[in-house]
Amino acid sequence: MDINDFFKNRRTIRKYSSQNVSDELLRDIIEQASHAPTTGNMQLYSVVVTRTKEGKERLLPMHFNQPSVAGCSVLLTFCADFNRFEKWCEASDAVPGYNNFQSFITAFLDTAIFAQQFCTIAEMYGLGCCYLGTTTYNAPQIAQELNLPDRVVPVTTLTVGYPDGDVLLSDRIPVAGLIHNEKYVDFSSDEIKLLYSEKEAREDSCRFVAENGKSSLAQVFTDVRYTREANEHFSKIYKDFIESKGFAI
Amino acid sequence: MDINDFFKNRRTIRKYSSQNVSDELLRDIIEQASHAPTTGNMQLYSVVVTRTKEGKERLLPMHFNQPSVAGCSVLLTFCADFNRFEKWCEASDAVPGYNNFQSFITAFLDTAIFAQQFCTIAEMYGLGCCYLGTTTYNAPQIAQELNLPDRVVPVTTLTVGYPDGDVLLSDRIPVAGLIHNEKYVDFSSDEIKLLYSEKEAREDSCRFVAENGKSSLAQVFTDVRYTREANEHFSKIYKDFIESKGFAI
Repeated sequence: MDINDFFKNRRTIRKYSSQNVSDELLRDIIEQASHAPTTGNMQLYSVVVTRTKEGKERLLPMHFNQPSVAGCSVLLTFCADFNRFEKWCEASDAVPGYNNFQSFITAFLDTAIFAQQFCTIAEMYGLGCCYLGTTTYNAPQIAQELNLPDRVVPVTTLTVGYPDGDVLLSDRIPVAGLIHNEKYVDFSSDEIKLLYSEKEAREDSCRFVAENGKSSLAQVFTDVRYTREANEHFSKIYKDFIESKGFAI
Repeated sequence: MDINDFFKNRRTIRKYSSQNVSDELLRDIIEQASHAPTTGNMQLYSVVVTRTKEGKERLLPMHFNQPSVAGCSVLLTFCADFNRFEKWCEASDAVPGYNNFQSFITAFLDTAIFAQQFCTIAEMYGLGCCYLGTTTYNAPQIAQELNLPDRVVPVTTLTVGYPDGDVLLSDRIPVAGLIHNEKYVDFSSDEIKLLYSEKEAREDSCRFVAENGKSSLAQVFTDVRYTREANEHFSKIYKDFIESKGFAI
């Protein structure tokens, strides 16, 4: 395997063939991913596997009917999980103090690292994955559907399956825009324009702008895809939900 | 490369040789990692590279003097970053609405995914990494040291270098404890004890318990390593800091 080639050419896969991901392979990948780094070796995460047609159909509207939900072989809901660790504490005459924001953040980080390790390994085995950002929007409904107890909060979801068809390689901004040496140096307006110029010039970007009747690609983000109104609406929902699961914010 | 072997045998590396990680290799790994999945292709992260002795010395106390900070070749502070994206919006006649909790969470997730992709690729090139959980504890001081502007919040730190010496493979709980099929099924006290029995029986675990004068391994976590008092203290600090950087919670 050429490392550079593998990582630079990976793609998000939203369309899957009818071939199923076997339980054995799924378990194998989860086991390998569980060796990813984790805070204090606490492994503050768990994964709920949805394989049945009925289960996917119930989750589908919670993910705004994204087609990869119905079309995937398995859907994985990755959860920040302090419940299991606390149960261990309680069974060990230890008094846990994890019902707070810092503990939630720690478990959230652990979960994201684990999910990404899963994604990388799955892709190495020839599977395709797609993250669903809707997970933090509709966390309350997802948690109810999956019977999540206190101190278990959905962080992200992956749809997983064997890829069907080719996908365009998506763009990234030049790496110089991501790196700051020793201190963060903020961007001038000209530097920013240069950084995003290739992205804006892409044929698919121009199509998005035209289709949405906007005058810039950034407006597609601010006015259509990730609006202030939606962000603020889902901010309150997720914050209240995290608190309802017993992490004080 | 045997995938299974690579991922199950990876280790956190805290001790490094004097060999430097070149700028070229570092940039290369960051570029490869930038192709990791990211919400709406927004790439809501940046990385501040600390290579100078003076820079590391200033960060050292903020990471509670962990030796890997002084001993690494480069220290990377991974930051949730909506500043760059907002600058692009402002240069494009678009009005951003990202000063809220959901946007922070989205950028935090993006950053964690990017950091873990970096870690995996670095390990594939023979480097060793160590995450520093102290990043969310002392975020205000770290942000000041690195000149982070509004809407840029430290999420995690990696110390990176060429490994020096062997490290014991750390344990993980059985994978069955991580997976829930269709619904989350909570653990009985007996199930929990079984799940953690191997971990508790390890020689290093027994040593931790004895050294700390505790009666169970879980007590080492609750009473020494991750106490309620510290968690609550750093919860307030991180929450206030996130708000001070312009993400309303």
